[in-house]
Amino acid sequence: MGDDAALVRPAAHRHILITTDLLIEGIDFNLGLSPFRQIGHKAMAANLSDIAAMGGIPRYAAVAMALPGRTRMKSVDLFYEGLMGLAKKYHVRLIGGDTSASPHGVMVALFLIGEVEPKRALTRSGARLGDRIFVTGPLGDANAGLEILKRRKPHRSPLVRRHLYPIPRVKEGRLIATRRLATAMVDLSDGLGSDLRHLCEASGVGARIDLARIPLSAALSAYAKRMGRDPCRYALEGGEDFELLFTVRPSRVHELLRLQSSGRLPAFSIGEITSKRHGITIVGHDRRERKMTARGYEHFAE
Amino acid sequence: MGDDAALVRPAAHRHILITTDLLIEGIDFNLGLSPFRQIGHKAMAANLSDIAAMGGIPRYAAVAMALPGRTRMKSVDLFYEGLMGLAKKYHVRLIGGDTSASPHGVMVALFLIGEVEPKRALTRSGARLGDRIFVTGPLGDANAGLEILKRRKPHRSPLVRRHLYPIPRVKEGRLIATRRLATAMVDLSDGLGSDLRHLCEASGVGARIDLARIPLSAALSAYAKRMGRDPCRYALEGGEDFELLFTVRPSRVHELLRLQSSGRLPAFSIGEITSKRHGITIVGHDRRERKMTARGYEHFAE
Repeated sequence: MGDDAALVRPAAHRHILITTDLLIEGIDFNLGLSPFRQIGHKAMAANLSDIAAMGGIPRYAAVAMALPGRTRMKSVDLFYEGLMGLAKKYHVRLIGGDTSASPHGVMVALFLIGEVEPKRALTRSGARLGDRIFVTGPLGDANAGLEILKRRKPHRSPLVRRHLYPIPRVKEGRLIATRRLATAMVDLSDGLGSDLRHLCEASGVGARIDLARIPLSAALSAYAKRMGRDPCRYALEGGEDFELLFTVRPSRVHELLRLQSSGRLPAFSIGEITSKRHGITIVGHDRRERKMTARGYEHFAE
Repeated sequence: MGDDAALVRPAAHRHILITTDLLIEGIDFNLGLSPFRQIGHKAMAANLSDIAAMGGIPRYAAVAMALPGRTRMKSVDLFYEGLMGLAKKYHVRLIGGDTSASPHGVMVALFLIGEVEPKRALTRSGARLGDRIFVTGPLGDANAGLEILKRRKPHRSPLVRRHLYPIPRVKEGRLIATRRLATAMVDLSDGLGSDLRHLCEASGVGARIDLARIPLSAALSAYAKRMGRDPCRYALEGGEDFELLFTVRPSRVHELLRLQSSGRLPAFSIGEITSKRHGITIVGHDRRERKMTARGYEHFAE
């Protein structure tokens, strides 16, 4: 720090991963709903999740921040506490940044650098016909948490916590990459409907998801029941769960399930890769197969 | 592009340089004075200059951008034209980014990654007593250019061009680093007064600058004369000239001057490093020595 640029030493024989995320007040967060600590945490979580989805090890972060004159120093401290709390957990070093005045709202751009062995890096484009589709944990919690927050209900729910303080799957992404278990991987930051589509488009394949196999938390099931809605809807339509979705060749599924049953890797099979011509479909609770849309699925059975 | 993070291969045995710059509408630029193409150019120039000041080779860039709904697509294209024009000149690859809506003004965060051989990297902290101080070109032009722009005078002046489209000294910074000519280096992005202070503080030294030796362009001299001001004032008080300031051991000055006279490296001697106790002073046109302040120098002779 203090020099014109930060200087770091990369590990030998590793490639570099670079990701960036922009958070804008009034668009990506609302200071009424999101305290500063949470914005710091979420900015770091989103970037860590991107590195995790490539199978990488996060290493260095830089922050660019624009703050209105009214911002209290305490708020900036809380932002960095949230950011650094998660950064330290994954041994990420904050190596630089730039702070500017903002005539309007708060804006944060976070930049994260990671590394990965050339032959371990995972992309979205390696999925092949017949691969099984797995996710690392229950989906839909963050989406339901945001809904609760917006209704200004008491914030004690674990769903709200999952929205405010998501935990990226860095360790799991790394394990999947070092064991070369997956053919493709993506993190669920926009919701299953839209992120699965990205993976399928990049790989030139289709997919069939089984609604009944989407893992759901007990909290989400209870909440959805109270709301009279299908809990799967929260998983499909959006939400920043930051679970990983990955595809596995049938011949490697056995090894994956061993890791899963020994408690080393949470993994839930939710469907399989099909041909591009087949498109992306969902088998509903009525066992009928329907087209999946970016916002979930057209004829949602409620 | 398209994956969660960009994947690049670093050169063997090189360290990584990382820099970031944030540009906020209404603070760092004004869309009335700065067209979009210029904002793209300037964002890239400021980051390239940071890498140049460390003696590095710029390699990869990522952009995070927040745009109000009223922004026309044409404006975004012009921004990228300005950015990429300069990026291509230095073989910088744009490897990613994030665009978001902005409820208010335009905000741009640019991240630039470079590389440098471990023993070639230059910092601000290596200047030693007796070192000579050099700059790579005339100072004050960009500052005067901004003054002209603000007065809404016709914009044909080369001073305005130097403010809007500065050229970072990437080639020169690299030459200084590979020849190991300098003990410390910094880019002049805030003005001589303030950037020299940063270098002296980091190195734990003082400095004596000779006002008469500050290189000035003919355009600045003519403009200052018309304004009835000392042209050196523009160099000291601010401005984003993006020239490099570097310090050289007396034993290496001969080699530097050979490079200079062969036209390979513009270099102008403007003073020398003194003890920390001596502080930072300026020898004025009257040959009297006075304390230098961040904004220039206290008793400016006009």
